[in-house]
Amino acid sequence: MDFYEVISTRRSIRSYKPDPIPEEALNRVLDAARIAPSGSNRQPWKFILVKDDQLKKNLVPLCGNQSFIAETPIVIVACGRNIHYDRGKYMGDMSMLVDVAIAVTHLTLAARAEGLGTCWIGMFDNKALKELLQIPEDVNVVALTPLGYPKGKAFTEPGARKPLSEIVYVDRYEGKSFS
Amino acid sequence: MDFYEVISTRRSIRSYKPDPIPEEALNRVLDAARIAPSGSNRQPWKFILVKDDQLKKNLVPLCGNQSFIAETPIVIVACGRNIHYDRGKYMGDMSMLVDVAIAVTHLTLAARAEGLGTCWIGMFDNKALKELLQIPEDVNVVALTPLGYPKGKAFTEPGARKPLSEIVYVDRYEGKSFS
Repeated sequence: MDFYEVISTRRSIRSYKPDPIPEEALNRVLDAARIAPSGSNRQPWKFILVKDDQLKKNLVPLCGNQSFIAETPIVIVACGRNIHYDRGKYMGDMSMLVDVAIAVTHLTLAARAEGLGTCWIGMFDNKALKELLQIPEDVNVVALTPLGYPKGKAFTEPGARKPLSEIVYVDRYEGKSFS
Repeated sequence: MDFYEVISTRRSIRSYKPDPIPEEALNRVLDAARIAPSGSNRQPWKFILVKDDQLKKNLVPLCGNQSFIAETPIVIVACGRNIHYDRGKYMGDMSMLVDVAIAVTHLTLAARAEGLGTCWIGMFDNKALKELLQIPEDVNVVALTPLGYPKGKAFTEPGARKPLSEIVYVDRYEGKSFS
């Protein structure tokens, strides 16, 4: 699928069919995350594929009771190691969040290219998830997403977005507007 | 360009021609960032296009003296507002980093689709950049990237990456390996 079609038709999907995901499609989606760039190529990401039905149900109350996440054959829990590479006086350890977000972006876009739906879940109880999935001390959850085939209409209505004139400046913050 | 070709040939480009960027290409690249998803659709991102030659030179020492960033017609400084929407007990304010990273990922991939090079810069002095570009208190820099046409060979040798077996688990951390 054309790149611009992928990014312009990706949607947050909140209703899914239980249909299984072909192994080859899953491999392409995970590989898209694998090849993402990261600071100093540290690749701090780990992906837990939650497939067990009971475990999926246990995720729901830890993610603000968003029950649709248990509808898919796989829920992906994206984690990152807090490796201590100092990437600037502001970022510190938190640059791990940027790296894992890049990989999950690759993953969600590849899913769209495969006709699969995803939904970034940013509301979660990190501590409880770590306990449930036996995630070690120096690793934290960055995001979750269900992965599965959308039910009903999907990849259709775009979300509202600010125009470029509100988000792009030239040479300084709130400098000359871009368009 | 095909989606998988874009993600598999994107590279961190560290040598550039000074050639100008056609307005339509720049618009498509910025629009790719604009349509990115974000938590609660807050769109916390702002992009400063640094075009002024002296200002570009002034960025170099604030970014670990990576002088190639001043070679391009435009350096993009991606910022995020620390809007206080609580997205989980771990993330807190830092979810802004994830949102801006998603948008910059869209931007860098769209640049590749346009034949333009980028390079994620994560080493920077946030405080000094904020002063230089008049960025307000509640906004911070998340990443920078030069944007321009690569000089010499580009989009060729892939970086080394861990195999899926090292980064994907099933049902628990360090559970069954994926492949």
